[in-house]
Amino acid sequence: MGVGVGPGDPELLTLKAMRALGEAEVIAHFAKAGNPSHSRTIVARHLRADVTELPLYYPVTTELPKGSAGYRDLIRDFYDGAAGDIAAHIEVGRAVAVICEGDPLFYGSYMHLHARLAPRFATEIVAGVTGMSGCWSAAGMPMAQGDDVFTVLPATLPEDELARRLSDADAAVVMKVGRHLPKLRRALDRSGRLPRALYVERGTMADAKMIPLSAKPDDEAPYFAVVLVPGWEERPGEEQ
Amino acid sequence: MGVGVGPGDPELLTLKAMRALGEAEVIAHFAKAGNPSHSRTIVARHLRADVTELPLYYPVTTELPKGSAGYRDLIRDFYDGAAGDIAAHIEVGRAVAVICEGDPLFYGSYMHLHARLAPRFATEIVAGVTGMSGCWSAAGMPMAQGDDVFTVLPATLPEDELARRLSDADAAVVMKVGRHLPKLRRALDRSGRLPRALYVERGTMADAKMIPLSAKPDDEAPYFAVVLVPGWEERPGEEQ
Repeated sequence: MGVGVGPGDPELLTLKAMRALGEAEVIAHFAKAGNPSHSRTIVARHLRADVTELPLYYPVTTELPKGSAGYRDLIRDFYDGAAGDIAAHIEVGRAVAVICEGDPLFYGSYMHLHARLAPRFATEIVAGVTGMSGCWSAAGMPMAQGDDVFTVLPATLPEDELARRLSDADAAVVMKVGRHLPKLRRALDRSGRLPRALYVERGTMADAKMIPLSAKPDDEAPYFAVVLVPGWEERPGEEQ
Repeated sequence: MGVGVGPGDPELLTLKAMRALGEAEVIAHFAKAGNPSHSRTIVARHLRADVTELPLYYPVTTELPKGSAGYRDLIRDFYDGAAGDIAAHIEVGRAVAVICEGDPLFYGSYMHLHARLAPRFATEIVAGVTGMSGCWSAAGMPMAQGDDVFTVLPATLPEDELARRLSDADAAVVMKVGRHLPKLRRALDRSGRLPRALYVERGTMADAKMIPLSAKPDDEAPYFAVVLVPGWEERPGEEQ
């Protein structure tokens, strides 16, 4: 079972996720070795006292280049092993919940387990509030309306492609900003979208940082920062 | 306050939405005249006994063409009036929650109220699980991963533009399918995306209908049907 636990605010858990946490005998969660699991932090207060925890530590994050055979092999073995560990619990009749930040099937590691386990076992997905919804809600920024075309882009794309895709969409969310911010800023400028772009760091946390990108004085950004480019804009009272 | 109540399953309400419902003295909800409000149906069991309900009935839905001046004027007057009604409650100190299917700032009518009220009053947004998350979760369909480009398209777009945009994205959700299904089917075929496209009706309801679009024998579809085109596809064990 893949259980979305939302973007970070523990109050953005759903009733269905709460029920899944109450029923699960085993809770699995992904984390970087040596770091607390974000998804576990979100649900910490709701874990059963007798729950078995199955932490799944990524064997590699940024140590090897993503496209390399070494990275691919390590990651594949890791997901194979994690799926095997979960299968062992399911096979002896235990209810397992894999808790996932945001939504399990939208840019989440859970999908690698789902691809391995869904053919063998009955699986259920508990939809969650996505990180991007958490960000634009915290910012109070209407994102898309009516017939708007909305797109999600990774900042890893080449500048020309970013500029083209930003011009081609009404509303956009750019993820994985990090060291790509100078390039992204140029692409937003070229596509005319810089004036309305909002830079968001830790969007749903108490220490969230939001600033119009055009007013951000530096190009420092963590990997998980996002940039929101709203589509629809209604100004009541103005002629349209 | 705009409160997302999720895609339809009452269990996909968040704890934060529950708290907002418990605190609100006035609940406003949009509906088509003569029809029950979907958002109200989702939260019915959680409404306070002493709550004041403020139903907001659209003055027009499909009776006038959307681009016409008559439609625009009617809708603008409607939102101005609704915002005025809500403002009157806020001004005498009442806590008002506008409940919204899905997420308030993602293709929702609430945004028209937000644009009118946020400049005058402190507003808070409670993010919700979107309708599309509800659909792909119910279908158990991994949608996007890694550096996938994800896009949301209205089926109202011309066929050529649909085909171009479907070719240009890794993953897509097509909304407002309805009478556009034959055109959408052609666009999916031209872009090579028809084999993996999934047709979904009433995605998060007990009577959901899901079928690979290539296997759907007819072109009947309600306005709110969606078509999901997944991006990432991992087949464990296969060489990549």
